[in-house]
Amino acid sequence: MTDDEPVEAEGNPWTVLSRRVAYDNNWIQVIEHDVLNPAGNPGLYGVVHVKSLAVGVLPIDDDGATYLVGQYRFPGDYFSWELPEGGGAMDVPAEISGARELREETGLTAARWHQFLRMDLSNAISDERAVGLIAWGLRQFAPEPEEDEKIIVRRMPFGEALAMALSGEIVDSFAQTMLFKAKLLADLGALPDPVLKRLAVGQ
Amino acid sequence: MTDDEPVEAEGNPWTVLSRRVAYDNNWIQVIEHDVLNPAGNPGLYGVVHVKSLAVGVLPIDDDGATYLVGQYRFPGDYFSWELPEGGGAMDVPAEISGARELREETGLTAARWHQFLRMDLSNAISDERAVGLIAWGLRQFAPEPEEDEKIIVRRMPFGEALAMALSGEIVDSFAQTMLFKAKLLADLGALPDPVLKRLAVGQ
Repeated sequence: MTDDEPVEAEGNPWTVLSRRVAYDNNWIQVIEHDVLNPAGNPGLYGVVHVKSLAVGVLPIDDDGATYLVGQYRFPGDYFSWELPEGGGAMDVPAEISGARELREETGLTAARWHQFLRMDLSNAISDERAVGLIAWGLRQFAPEPEEDEKIIVRRMPFGEALAMALSGEIVDSFAQTMLFKAKLLADLGALPDPVLKRLAVGQ
Repeated sequence: MTDDEPVEAEGNPWTVLSRRVAYDNNWIQVIEHDVLNPAGNPGLYGVVHVKSLAVGVLPIDDDGATYLVGQYRFPGDYFSWELPEGGGAMDVPAEISGARELREETGLTAARWHQFLRMDLSNAISDERAVGLIAWGLRQFAPEPEEDEKIIVRRMPFGEALAMALSGEIVDSFAQTMLFKAKLLADLGALPDPVLKRLAVGQ
């Protein structure tokens, strides 16, 4: 992408007259677009460009338990229970980034991975994409948190984590959606057999 | 908030040394913080501050049908099927903002509202908060889209919209989470009776 260069997009009712990087740090950019909106009138669209892929992991152990990680979330200024989540490079398979996040935050490794969720987190404002993975065949090692992470891990039956999401105790949208979708797919029998067996124990 | 002023936050393992508005438009800001991270080392945290509350509506009519809105999403550069969603002022009740979005995008009014979802959309990057509402007691008028919205509306049984979310055809996280949570709460009988009755018809 170069600055202030006219851009054409097919099938897009917005006309982009010019764009420029208005903000940049290691993780995000704001790309400002001078546009004509769908009605043909001039305006500004500032897109938050997220440089990494959001990867979330729902680990399920042989007893049907999952693992929540608790950490202080700086942007919202609160302590948050979530599933293991982090950012991966765009050109790295989600399973690789997910395995790294899982290991760093919980100390777990997983023998098997199943991608079960794709979603965009805030698609009117940003281009951030998220991929959710179920991980099983777990082994426990020591966590290796990054220095900007101060994390508490809680192991609990899958059903208990789901209840925390349903009650609103889990506020993070990514963790909520992973827990909800895993339950619905399990009810439909639409997950790999070893996952269905473990979730049946953990409910 | 004033620029470059030291800030203290209780229970927060991050120390904020200074903060400043590094980017600003009508909808978002990026607030840059010079911080000491949880390990005590200096760093930068750029928080995307979203000026509005994200409000989403799951309308359910008397036949158990819901209404998806399709529109081109500029940040991700694709056409997206979603539930009616939009931004409301922070000091306005979500039901008021939701009613406005529902009317603008679909032409529907609703006699009854039930808040059933609270979540944060991308809590490592932004402070954006979302509230989900179920709306029933619907009446159909003409849609009144804003000039930056070019929207298609599809009415379909709730179960069909849920299937689109489960299959990944609905990519938007907010719509996915609302559909998933409504289904799970319905299965638990944990929604108002008139909603349970309508959802039972629409599955």
